Amino acid sequence: MVGRTHGIHAEPTTAGLVFALWYEELGRDRVRVERAREIISVGKLSGAVGTYSGVPPTVEADALAGLGLEPAPVANQVIQRDRHDEYLFSLAVTAASIEKIAVNIRHWQRTEVGEASEPFRKGQRGSSAMPHKKNPILCENLTGLARLVRALASTGHENVALWHERDISHSSVERLAFPDATTALDFMLHRMAGVLEGLNVHTERMMENLEMTGGLVFSQSVLLALCRAGIARSEAYARVQRNAMIGWDSGRGLLELLREDPEVVEPLGLEALESCFDLDQHLAHAVEVVDRVIPQEGA
Amino acid sequence: MVGRTHGIHAEPTTAGLVFALWYEELGRDRVRVERAREIISVGKLSGAVGTYSGVPPTVEADALAGLGLEPAPVANQVIQRDRHDEYLFSLAVTAASIEKIAVNIRHWQRTEVGEASEPFRKGQRGSSAMPHKKNPILCENLTGLARLVRALASTGHENVALWHERDISHSSVERLAFPDATTALDFMLHRMAGVLEGLNVHTERMMENLEMTGGLVFSQSVLLALCRAGIARSEAYARVQRNAMIGWDSGRGLLELLREDPEVVEPLGLEALESCFDLDQHLAHAVEVVDRVIPQEGA
Amino acid sequence: MVGRTHGIHAEPTTAGLVFALWYEELGRDRVRVERAREIISVGKLSGAVGTYSGVPPTVEADALAGLGLEPAPVANQVIQRDRHDEYLFSLAVTAASIEKIAVNIRHWQRTEVGEASEPFRKGQRGSSAMPHKKNPILCENLTGLARLVRALASTGHENVALWHERDISHSSVERLAFPDATTALDFMLHRMAGVLEGLNVHTERMMENLEMTGGLVFSQSVLLALCRAGIARSEAYARVQRNAMIGWDSGRGLLELLREDPEVVEPLGLEALESCFDLDQHLAHAVEVVDRVIPQEGA
Amino acid sequence: MVGRTHGIHAEPTTAGLVFALWYEELGRDRVRVERAREIISVGKLSGAVGTYSGVPPTVEADALAGLGLEPAPVANQVIQRDRHDEYLFSLAVTAASIEKIAVNIRHWQRTEVGEASEPFRKGQRGSSAMPHKKNPILCENLTGLARLVRALASTGHENVALWHERDISHSSVERLAFPDATTALDFMLHRMAGVLEGLNVHTERMMENLEMTGGLVFSQSVLLALCRAGIARSEAYARVQRNAMIGWDSGRGLLELLREDPEVVEPLGLEALESCFDLDQHLAHAVEVVDRVIPQEGA
Repeated sequence: MVGRTHGIHAEPTTAGLVFALWYEELGRDRVRVERAREIISVGKLSGAVGTYSGVPPTVEADALAGLGLEPAPVANQVIQRDRHDEYLFSLAVTAASIEKIAVNIRHWQRTEVGEASEPFRKGQRGSSAMPHKKNPILCENLTGLARLVRALASTGHENVALWHERDISHSSVERLAFPDATTALDFMLHRMAGVLEGLNVHTERMMENLEMTGGLVFSQSVLLALCRAGIARSEAYARVQRNAMIGWDSGRGLLELLREDPEVVEPLGLEALESCFDLDQHLAHAVEVVDRVIPQEGA
Repeated sequence: MVGRTHGIHAEPTTAGLVFALWYEELGRDRVRVERAREIISVGKLSGAVGTYSGVPPTVEADALAGLGLEPAPVANQVIQRDRHDEYLFSLAVTAASIEKIAVNIRHWQRTEVGEASEPFRKGQRGSSAMPHKKNPILCENLTGLARLVRALASTGHENVALWHERDISHSSVERLAFPDATTALDFMLHRMAGVLEGLNVHTERMMENLEMTGGLVFSQSVLLALCRAGIARSEAYARVQRNAMIGWDSGRGLLELLREDPEVVEPLGLEALESCFDLDQHLAHAVEVVDRVIPQEGA
Repeated sequence: MVGRTHGIHAEPTTAGLVFALWYEELGRDRVRVERAREIISVGKLSGAVGTYSGVPPTVEADALAGLGLEPAPVANQVIQRDRHDEYLFSLAVTAASIEKIAVNIRHWQRTEVGEASEPFRKGQRGSSAMPHKKNPILCENLTGLARLVRALASTGHENVALWHERDISHSSVERLAFPDATTALDFMLHRMAGVLEGLNVHTERMMENLEMTGGLVFSQSVLLALCRAGIARSEAYARVQRNAMIGWDSGRGLLELLREDPEVVEPLGLEALESCFDLDQHLAHAVEVVDRVIPQEGA
Repeated sequence: MVGRTHGIHAEPTTAGLVFALWYEELGRDRVRVERAREIISVGKLSGAVGTYSGVPPTVEADALAGLGLEPAPVANQVIQRDRHDEYLFSLAVTAASIEKIAVNIRHWQRTEVGEASEPFRKGQRGSSAMPHKKNPILCENLTGLARLVRALASTGHENVALWHERDISHSSVERLAFPDATTALDFMLHRMAGVLEGLNVHTERMMENLEMTGGLVFSQSVLLALCRAGIARSEAYARVQRNAMIGWDSGRGLLELLREDPEVVEPLGLEALESCFDLDQHLAHAVEVVDRVIPQEGA
């Protein structure tokens, strides 16, 4: 499929590479959430200001062991809130990763792009007013929920600086922010899993889009080939750009235009010029990247 | 041009309507900024805790008049920070409106859409690596700056609750947030003005995109016409949707398909069916909206 | 009572001045909320992309009039979200003002300060573990809720830049943020009203605290009197500061110390020195400020 | 010193325990910053969309090795921004921990508390207007800077969801937020180190404050002793509370009051009652906590 930077066709890439990138990022998020769960899995029974004035540390250790919690090495009236701040962050960054996937699918589903679309049940209505529509509402919903989770998570920083041995201002915040952020992310993970499992991938549209600029997406290959053939980079850039601009405006293919430009053909030769437009050569390493990131079945 | 909801072609609209909407929203932002400027245009010379212990109110009034400021009706050591919070908000919401315009132009400039593009100087390089590219970097830059302005503005809320007659914790925040948010928005306004003045509008692509779905964007007109002809809404919806789905999959035009569907033609008649696809009729009111929002020259 | 800046005793002030300051700030907040309510009291029935393709503007005007809403001058599929951003801001800034009052009361209720305290029902338990305590839990609760409201309100900025004629990403955010922020602020206003109505004011502690520094809070009066008597400001500052520092360390009263310092007594004279420590003179204007801010009964 | 919860005297604690708590929390922050530094120490030279179309992975590995960076396992045009989000979080949470320390020192330095104060240079002016003042301006400054760092850090979440293979909207945000948040935290760490190194600790005020409530801070010890002596908890609570409330109002010592209450003396005995007010016994475990958290010299 065509890779896009700045929303503009750039170079060929593969859908597999995109999925691998999401997979690897969510792996980092999983580590963050697991680490945060561990960091908040501490308790304290050390009294009103953390001095064990009423019960000795042994009681705390016994009681917490029964709950699967570690005793906090030091506490005042409460567990320190930097721990919960990290927990909330782990939710917010994971939500942001889901938002990234959601935004990408929304882009893919745009009418002009059409490369993939959300699952759409037989008989489902896309729009109450417009019978022809299939809207990426699941991914739009997830985009919004990411905003919500990060807003709720932002409260974590302000809860750290409690007064002296504790004030209870953090409590009213946490009673809403903790469950809402946690359940929202849980919902997001399940919804996104469903979207990805049922994703409709339109490979023919991918190929059409890849070809729609008449080979402009190979312009860098020609640029690099010219450089390797001894042309100074700025001069090589100018030779490719002038043909590319004609291509944008006229709709003629870039290879066809370059074949007619002696300042390109002479230094490169026709065969080398044509090989710049070879898709398999372009994407050879992309397959390797997927293999190194996605665990192989049976491995 | 085609109007898009959820990123999907919906119904025809006009570029003028889009510009009018931006214009009207920025008018609200201007009111907000002007109001905020007024709200912070107060001063105080009422002493260390606001009691005028050293100088009487008359001195304050005289001194502030020379600065074009109103005396605050009541103060402690400082002007209360809810005023500055409103100022910062006025910057952040204006930045968000500019972000909206920037995101829209970035969408328009996408390779598959191509309906408008940022000014691009003759000889400008679109990408250091890919000679064929024209990237909407000004609008991407503005999108990011809106994030920055709203982040800086978020500090305003935390500066309101100072201790007793004042603590100075707000000062270190304001010394960065006030100038940075203000100058960033000033830059954004100028940059966006430049983008809009030099915007390249590609009307032929607008028309191509409007027609690319073979008339699906008129599906609601048919739906409403069927309802007016006495068909129950859910039944009318089903009749249009089944043809629209064939249209999406086959590429055949919706009008052509509907003409062959007796359950559509019989209740409507051919003439009424065809008039559902009339663009001028569709957009008649859009022109009125622009007129009521944009001040007329000479008026 | 003593006025405090940076948490340090500064100069005398009055509780009335503090209440007047809160009153006046909440007046600005009321204007903000009322204005925001007006700004979101618009509706639209102009069709899927705002072109009135299916129903003419007259239908919209009639329908909205019945709901007490103004038609938006221009819209796409939805009312533009800068309006709701302003609404959320009006909630967040009001919450911040309540937080300011709550933090102040918490400071007043500190054991060492003791100048005012929250209502405490007969028989109420202050702490489950410590039978002697009366905690300002209502104000702590309000402090936390202000964090929550501003976090929810921060989502408003991100909902402004929707795609083209609308994407629905804002919806999932608003379904939680709008009701939760609104009801939280409503709760806060009622709770704070109850706290203020039942506030226990300990005037004797106010007077004790005012006197606890042995007159240091009048140091600026002496400084200004010395300046008016012709002593250069930096010299006058040094003369007062050296006595004040002895006062801090020894606990002796500032007036007593200054009476023994010929570099103070000679330029000022004893009578003028003593009048610097006159509380009524100090606070004469504070009463005027309260009168100009608080509406008079019967007026 | 007295431990305070809700700003109210609770139970005795030690300054050492407070410092140990800060020390241990900053240890977690250090881990977070180091981990974040590692997570962003990756690079990529895999071409415009991450496919290594122009240069093979071996070139990337060689080049990055020279920079001390790991190759990202997968990338598109850029390193994924969840990594930088974690970096910004590590700055914000560390800033919040510093804020906690700063707020605590500001509380300690309040005129009525006076238990510790910031370093104050000989000849330094505490206030331009009031010669007697020593203000905790360094800690107030740090409180504000924490707000700034977390505001800047909040941008990290919004930079994750870039379009397709990358849009450049993150760049304008990062150019300000990265250096400003980083240098602000660096400044904060150095400033706080200086404050802590030069902190003036007023142990005599600590003892005075501990004793100012006439032993109320031992109310829980009596409560627990009564429970151990077989009194039901709610009944024990009532017996202690009624004496504590008399203590608050009359200024009489709690031990003195309890000695006269047969419902306390009879079940406990005088000796056991008096031992409830023994400070050393109260704080025995607090020393152990410090030892387990602070690395011992020579160890």
